[in-house]
Amino acid sequence: MDQKALLALLEERKFKELKEELGNMYPVDIAELLEEVDERQMILIFRLLGKEEAAETFTDMSSETREFLINALTDSELEEVMDEMYVDDTVDVLEEMPANVVDRLLMATDEETRVQINALLQYPEDSAGSVMNIDYVSFRKEMTVEEAILKIRQVGINRETIYTCYVTEKKKLIGWVDIKDLLTSSESRTIEEIMDTNILYAHTHDDQEEVATMIRKYGLVAIPIVDYEMCMVGIVTVDDAMIVLQEEATEDISMMAGVSPNDDSYFGTSVWRHALSRIPWLLFLMLSATVSGLLLAYYENAMSAMPILITLIPMLMGTGGNCGSQSSTLMIRGLAVGEIRFKDLFRVIFKEIRIALIVGVVLSVANGIRIYVMYQDMKLAFVIGITIIAIVCMAKVVGCVLPLVAKRIGLDPALMATPLISTLLDTGTILVYFAIVTLMFRL
Amino acid sequence: MDQKALLALLEERKFKELKEELGNMYPVDIAELLEEVDERQMILIFRLLGKEEAAETFTDMSSETREFLINALTDSELEEVMDEMYVDDTVDVLEEMPANVVDRLLMATDEETRVQINALLQYPEDSAGSVMNIDYVSFRKEMTVEEAILKIRQVGINRETIYTCYVTEKKKLIGWVDIKDLLTSSESRTIEEIMDTNILYAHTHDDQEEVATMIRKYGLVAIPIVDYEMCMVGIVTVDDAMIVLQEEATEDISMMAGVSPNDDSYFGTSVWRHALSRIPWLLFLMLSATVSGLLLAYYENAMSAMPILITLIPMLMGTGGNCGSQSSTLMIRGLAVGEIRFKDLFRVIFKEIRIALIVGVVLSVANGIRIYVMYQDMKLAFVIGITIIAIVCMAKVVGCVLPLVAKRIGLDPALMATPLISTLLDTGTILVYFAIVTLMFRL
Repeated sequence: MDQKALLALLEERKFKELKEELGNMYPVDIAELLEEVDERQMILIFRLLGKEEAAETFTDMSSETREFLINALTDSELEEVMDEMYVDDTVDVLEEMPANVVDRLLMATDEETRVQINALLQYPEDSAGSVMNIDYVSFRKEMTVEEAILKIRQVGINRETIYTCYVTEKKKLIGWVDIKDLLTSSESRTIEEIMDTNILYAHTHDDQEEVATMIRKYGLVAIPIVDYEMCMVGIVTVDDAMIVLQEEATEDISMMAGVSPNDDSYFGTSVWRHALSRIPWLLFLMLSATVSGLLLAYYENAMSAMPILITLIPMLMGTGGNCGSQSSTLMIRGLAVGEIRFKDLFRVIFKEIRIALIVGVVLSVANGIRIYVMYQDMKLAFVIGITIIAIVCMAKVVGCVLPLVAKRIGLDPALMATPLISTLLDTGTILVYFAIVTLMFRL
Repeated sequence: MDQKALLALLEERKFKELKEELGNMYPVDIAELLEEVDERQMILIFRLLGKEEAAETFTDMSSETREFLINALTDSELEEVMDEMYVDDTVDVLEEMPANVVDRLLMATDEETRVQINALLQYPEDSAGSVMNIDYVSFRKEMTVEEAILKIRQVGINRETIYTCYVTEKKKLIGWVDIKDLLTSSESRTIEEIMDTNILYAHTHDDQEEVATMIRKYGLVAIPIVDYEMCMVGIVTVDDAMIVLQEEATEDISMMAGVSPNDDSYFGTSVWRHALSRIPWLLFLMLSATVSGLLLAYYENAMSAMPILITLIPMLMGTGGNCGSQSSTLMIRGLAVGEIRFKDLFRVIFKEIRIALIVGVVLSVANGIRIYVMYQDMKLAFVIGITIIAIVCMAKVVGCVLPLVAKRIGLDPALMATPLISTLLDTGTILVYFAIVTLMFRL
């Protein structure tokens, strides 16, 4: 059923039918619907949702809508929603809310949950601890397969995932069992016999991106999170890992375009905040670009002696910038997916120089032909050809070195993308260009 | 155990210990190891792997290494590996191999698998059909929970995933059951009673990126794939979805830097192929940039009358390009994750113009102060201020419109990123700049 039909039901006050339709929808779709309707409709629809559905929808909506709803709901309604939410989702919600809302939300949760929430809130932002789920199934190694299955039957209904179960001994993680192995093993065998002791795990303080990358690399559905004593404290599930990886990719892409990343959506961010996240880089780059401008002023005499030189500047600056961003982008992505490391520096430089020579020669020839056709000046075509090869080599080397060095010294490599690289290369291009032409034409 | 220690075992011919160590490693790590060792070591190590491990490692390695191994293995060794591989992985391998290797691989598979492989090879590249897995567990709705669990016990050991099972009737998909619901329901209930008929599914010809996005959006571990008669033909699992999303993000990022995307890794791509994938855009952009150059030649008189104008060109072109790429990048990413759609065009333009005004005023003031300090010329500071605001507005609008229009007419929005946008904007910047300065200074 589409949005229009649903809203028609609402306007005709056919609440029973609407409630039924909502019951057939996925919470993430209901959350999307709520973002599109007006505030009166939002509350009406939200109140029609079943308890569990309401909690899941609440988790999936934008922080703006959530804050509005929190203010609109009564204390007992809010308590019902909070009761049904998973603790890790509650923590995610709390982290985005202003202090007065947090107080109200914490008041609506029971004592036990509040203790768990406070523990989770201690983990640093973007750490595995901050995205982990504390609901999981654990076995003792002495249990039989039959007992283990019984335990899942009893507690599993409250667990967000039971696909992988963990074996602990005095809280220490000692093995894991896939639900498949549990189902396909004889009921009388012990967990110790069927568990896999070759465990992949992460620490609470590991970066969430690294943990998500492990989940992708090894094709896991969940990874156990342990503290420094190897005691198991939670799991990170694959659905959360996918969201982490999407957010990190968006963050990298934003940063590569000189926009300070921000967790909210494009439309969820106000005009002022958009402006604020774009101004710093623009300001820095604008002022840096004046260096290139001053260099041009310095070569004014050369340009008045040979006015054609000025017409070539945009082409050379563009080519330098584009070559540099090609290399830096491939490096940044290679670093992000773990294919390229700092120790590959020289291997990368050697490869980029060879690529630069091929690219440089092809561009020089193409441009040489154009210059010769337009101006019938063989010498100019040749000199500009040499210039292009030099600029391409410089651009490729700078483009591949900077992200690797940034990574090495602990900066985000994505900072070394197009805007910064091309501003730096503009200056380099002008220097190389005029060094070569003043020498060759004795200007 | 690290790579050095493993290679030491190999060189000391301690094959038994090495075999044991390899048995404790994950196939994807073994595949990584094989990429780093020489060819003789590669074959020795590969021959030490257990059957199943060898098949998984084979799936995880780069296509270059794989081709080398295929040529080095005997027919019977190859047959063993192929026997253990999942059909969908075999198809992925085949798609990358030259024809003579494909023939040899097909010869090493049995008749039944060959028929399945041929069916999978029919699906278009990048379709759900081409990435799906044909191993899954299906139930009839009349079965009891007990019978269903028994079925998993019998066949589940050969299934890549049993976390979600599917209910079919005459091959048509009619419901799904999560393993958790199966385990927590009474054994005497029927599948029909516990199944969820509100099914998320995709068609064989759907784009793999859309299917992966659905898996992420709804937090699924697998999604059923049906043909046009709603008959179930396979599943796409979350681990494959993560790989698809990673590849698509890499593809977008490459394209946004003017590099033709390519499925291989940075080091797995030869220098020539790297050059080839970078030259087309550079060539196109280089020749486009000559337009800006010719425009500059046209305004030569203005520049000789007022030489300071030339020093401002890099700053203005840089600012225009950077503003434009900020907007286009946010659009491209918003389109990729499904947040922004073409119908949002006017909403986006209105938002970007407001952002542009704020950004433009801030940059103008900063730059005005700089110009006044350096040249004590109030009029110049003011005129350049107006120019910056005009350029920023133009850049933001062009930057947000082009990716949306590209998407609308069926082009990849990522094409409309930095290199193209900034080359276009260079021309626009020069036009706007000289239009304003020639008017204001009567040049």
